[in-house]
Amino acid sequence: MAFVSEVPKVTFTSPIFCSILGNTLLSTVPGISGAGPTPDKTLLTPVLDAELIMYGSITSMPVKPNTPTGCPTPASITRAMVDLADLCPLFINAGLAHIPTVPCLDMYGCVGGDPREHDALPCAATLYERGMWIGKFLSGSSDLLVLGECVPGGTTTALCILRALGYTASVSSSFARNPVTKKEEICKKVQDRIRSGNLTQPLDLVRATGDPMMPAAAGIARSYTGDLLLAGGTQMLAVAALLRAMGGKVPTIVTTSYVRDDPTANMEDLAGQIGVKVVYVDPGFHDLGHAGLARYCIGEVKEGMGAGGAMLLAYLLGHSPDAIRAKIYETVSGYS
Amino acid sequence: MAFVSEVPKVTFTSPIFCSILGNTLLSTVPGISGAGPTPDKTLLTPVLDAELIMYGSITSMPVKPNTPTGCPTPASITRAMVDLADLCPLFINAGLAHIPTVPCLDMYGCVGGDPREHDALPCAATLYERGMWIGKFLSGSSDLLVLGECVPGGTTTALCILRALGYTASVSSSFARNPVTKKEEICKKVQDRIRSGNLTQPLDLVRATGDPMMPAAAGIARSYTGDLLLAGGTQMLAVAALLRAMGGKVPTIVTTSYVRDDPTANMEDLAGQIGVKVVYVDPGFHDLGHAGLARYCIGEVKEGMGAGGAMLLAYLLGHSPDAIRAKIYETVSGYS
Repeated sequence: MAFVSEVPKVTFTSPIFCSILGNTLLSTVPGISGAGPTPDKTLLTPVLDAELIMYGSITSMPVKPNTPTGCPTPASITRAMVDLADLCPLFINAGLAHIPTVPCLDMYGCVGGDPREHDALPCAATLYERGMWIGKFLSGSSDLLVLGECVPGGTTTALCILRALGYTASVSSSFARNPVTKKEEICKKVQDRIRSGNLTQPLDLVRATGDPMMPAAAGIARSYTGDLLLAGGTQMLAVAALLRAMGGKVPTIVTTSYVRDDPTANMEDLAGQIGVKVVYVDPGFHDLGHAGLARYCIGEVKEGMGAGGAMLLAYLLGHSPDAIRAKIYETVSGYS
Repeated sequence: MAFVSEVPKVTFTSPIFCSILGNTLLSTVPGISGAGPTPDKTLLTPVLDAELIMYGSITSMPVKPNTPTGCPTPASITRAMVDLADLCPLFINAGLAHIPTVPCLDMYGCVGGDPREHDALPCAATLYERGMWIGKFLSGSSDLLVLGECVPGGTTTALCILRALGYTASVSSSFARNPVTKKEEICKKVQDRIRSGNLTQPLDLVRATGDPMMPAAAGIARSYTGDLLLAGGTQMLAVAALLRAMGGKVPTIVTTSYVRDDPTANMEDLAGQIGVKVVYVDPGFHDLGHAGLARYCIGEVKEGMGAGGAMLLAYLLGHSPDAIRAKIYETVSGYS
């Protein structure tokens, strides 16, 4: 298998890797998110992941950067690429439940609420506007933006948004066993509420059932003038679908091959429906000799914190697939 | 009088204007700070000023960007330069009492406490470290950094730090009538506390009696690789003195001629003691035909939010002194 399904046509001298951090209270609904040891602790994951990526270790709490089943978090992959390619990543706080332990470009947004009963994101329009400002700011200092995300529970909000926009969507999950039934239950309640409110405008849908990453990413994408790659799986498909509905340009998505190969999601089909190009990175974890990474191949974790985009950026900066794989192995081996 | 006392030797293609926002509870001590309609409301000033600079008006509260005596805030000057030179300013939140209404690079620091009784800034070392990260980040995206500040009450913390470092210092004030006696009373208590604690290391002094802007600015200055101009008056002298004490390179300071001409401060003498070059911008407000701006010449306001640095940056970007003066007049005339 090729390391990259297709090398995106980008030219750049000044690339930047950013990741948008956010929370939705849906991640605290038992069984929805695998991005944390307990449902409540999923709210902390973006903060701990950002700390790992920036400093190479988590010192603010006595935790290891592994999932409960022993998989290295996708942030470990992003950290390895930061180290290999000497990146200086910028984290964007769109709405977190906990105070970050690293500096963030803070949008002073809000945590996403539970969309089953009431509007999840009253600050949606504000986040979109402030995202536009961030896109303008980043345009002045870079010409390639790889934009990742970390939102536990975000595949469920992505499902709600994609369905609300009329797509026949199934979404991926960080669980090897995707909790499809639970997601569908939530999604059904949300769709009923959206229909009864006659909501159709993209930002109205985000206000009703989105998470803070979505309007932030959409705003940045609308105003960024360089080449933009959205780094993520089905969550970035939701952003692409929003941009399509807004009439804006739809940037290329980059994710891992493990998201494409998830039989419970329909990444390629959905991308076709939306009309968005997706680049897949295959780091070949099956024969890297690490049991935790190998579990990515059987559908666990798969993607997160722009890991696919970080690997692609390292590749575009001249690092070979072998060097990328070796650095990831070295990084995650340092944990145990 | 020349518009600029001396044009600093900088070469750049990608300049950035940043301003560090912070609070110290000393601004709530009655009579210390003129940067707000009441002592308590001085805590809000950085947030309102940043909003004015980014959006051109303050909409989050029903206030006008004038001081209680009818002077346009220095943020108005900075706003005028942002408009004239099409700058995209970045605000850095080092420790604010209120949530900003614009996106900021947030260091998740702390508000400075009252240094008379206990350590004012327990987060000093953290802010310094995170400042180092910000300096590295900005080095990747710019080659000239004009770094301003907005800290009501900050001339008093500057006085405390300068004295603690052994300088014979008097500091400026946003009041036309500098509350020297009150500042000296505070400073005396602080020096007693510092002596009894045998504190001599720069970051220990900042922890004891600094404000959040100081370690943030010092950290940025330590790691920024492009040309750096510290934009401010006696508060930036305190930062320069800290950098000198740390053994680091001391960047050039840029401020207004109104700070130099303040008879209650000793800007030029102090700069000589520290060994820092200061560039003075004289926008000639005395004959601009605006009563509020003319009050700058009799010692009111004088500087703030990097106004001197913003005017210098516009000048370096090719805008004439006449265009700069005209834009400031147009901007502040729009308020009344």
